[in-house]
Amino acid sequence: MIKFTERAPYAPVEYLYDVEEILFKGKSKFQEIMVIKNPHYGKMLILDDVVQITERDEFFYHEMLTHVAMHANPSPRKVIVIGGGDGGVVREVLKHRSVEKVFFVEIDEEVINVSKRFFPAVSSGIDDPRVEIKIMDGAEFVARGKKSDIDAVIIDSTDIIGFARSLFTQEFFDSVKACLTDGGMFVTHTESLHFHKDMVIEIQEALKKVFPVVDLYTTSIATYPGNWWAFAIASRGLSPREVRHPFDIKTKYYSDEIHLQSFVPKGFYEKLMRREMEW
Amino acid sequence: MIKFTERAPYAPVEYLYDVEEILFKGKSKFQEIMVIKNPHYGKMLILDDVVQITERDEFFYHEMLTHVAMHANPSPRKVIVIGGGDGGVVREVLKHRSVEKVFFVEIDEEVINVSKRFFPAVSSGIDDPRVEIKIMDGAEFVARGKKSDIDAVIIDSTDIIGFARSLFTQEFFDSVKACLTDGGMFVTHTESLHFHKDMVIEIQEALKKVFPVVDLYTTSIATYPGNWWAFAIASRGLSPREVRHPFDIKTKYYSDEIHLQSFVPKGFYEKLMRREMEW
Repeated sequence: MIKFTERAPYAPVEYLYDVEEILFKGKSKFQEIMVIKNPHYGKMLILDDVVQITERDEFFYHEMLTHVAMHANPSPRKVIVIGGGDGGVVREVLKHRSVEKVFFVEIDEEVINVSKRFFPAVSSGIDDPRVEIKIMDGAEFVARGKKSDIDAVIIDSTDIIGFARSLFTQEFFDSVKACLTDGGMFVTHTESLHFHKDMVIEIQEALKKVFPVVDLYTTSIATYPGNWWAFAIASRGLSPREVRHPFDIKTKYYSDEIHLQSFVPKGFYEKLMRREMEW
Repeated sequence: MIKFTERAPYAPVEYLYDVEEILFKGKSKFQEIMVIKNPHYGKMLILDDVVQITERDEFFYHEMLTHVAMHANPSPRKVIVIGGGDGGVVREVLKHRSVEKVFFVEIDEEVINVSKRFFPAVSSGIDDPRVEIKIMDGAEFVARGKKSDIDAVIIDSTDIIGFARSLFTQEFFDSVKACLTDGGMFVTHTESLHFHKDMVIEIQEALKKVFPVVDLYTTSIATYPGNWWAFAIASRGLSPREVRHPFDIKTKYYSDEIHLQSFVPKGFYEKLMRREMEW
């Protein structure tokens, strides 16, 4: 059997996947893009040798990245999605009937094209009339708009290295805050709590310098090394732990009870932030 | 760099670890036993090519396997630990001051010896006077005692294949029930909710035929493929979701708030058991 060895940044373990078929292999201006077929996961999208999504389990990540912020807002109308060229987050955002406009900002157009070709069930929302695609750097896009009319900013970046780094700076967080409504939510993945605990803490700290409310929730994603995936969520005032409008969309994993449970307990959070958790 | 490729049963992904040093390699009557040194995890105990524990993160599994059952019981005095030759569960059980007696039943004496030699911080409780070591099959041991005086039975088995299978039969569950006190708790790992969902459900169903109360909690263990590790817990009446005596022991991860949060939400549980969760 042909094998694909994943080399995720900073991960102390490599993942090895069986390869039934290499469906696509190409280079964009930004990265190497590959689509392989695996007997368990179906098609897998791989950027620079790191697994981004699989047909079988992409919904865990896309639902949990999207719906916590979306349900913590009373009625999300305008949303910015940065990254996530596969379209998975856009698909989830569009499930909310209140949504009128999605700015879909992806730096690498090739990822969108490959996803449309190989992952139609993931990219299904990209051509929706409510979606405006912007092929550009997400930090630049957010820095331009300062109208405070955005209800959610959702970052679906690759690992926090290279060009994705611009989405994790104080400057960027300032621009995000400026564009959000009073009830607006900002959410981003922050790697694995098993493997990148310090990074999780540092991003919480950086966000706290900008946002009055910053919180942390997690979910287990089998295809991201470390699996115990951490999401940072911040707002100008509203607690993201509350579900503020009825849960009436179709999901495979997320629900209003999963929303509440995914946040780390308060005592755990405090101990973590005091750097007293040892692993 | 020398690599160790883990071949966990049923897992659709292999894990690849850097090997700094092979500290031990031997064969017992039951399995191949190996201890390697990894730059991130420190020493790792490997049985039949499957990672059992690592110096760095063993506490996640040992604490979560032990303390939920121990805290759901009002005052655990007598405990049976089956498997877990490394001694990690025994160490955690002994943290509870109410404990008077631990029957430590391990089929493979070699695992105990190797652990004492290479993992002294894990096996530290094995020689405690409250511990009685029984080198035998756990199912046989439990079948013999029917005095209903055991407060917790904790299974720390290898993957559910080969000789570990005897610990997942209806017959075994019947014997466990017979040896438990009214407030007694039975707990066992049941593999990954990502990779072995059907097995998780089947063990819940099998337990329900024997115990009036059966429940499911999870935690993320980075070194077990699938990571989203599922634990089945059962009792003759008491709900394991409640912490019944003060949390006053020293732990690295488990706490009373983690106890409550680790149980899957009720709606999720029902949907899972109706086999409506699709992944």
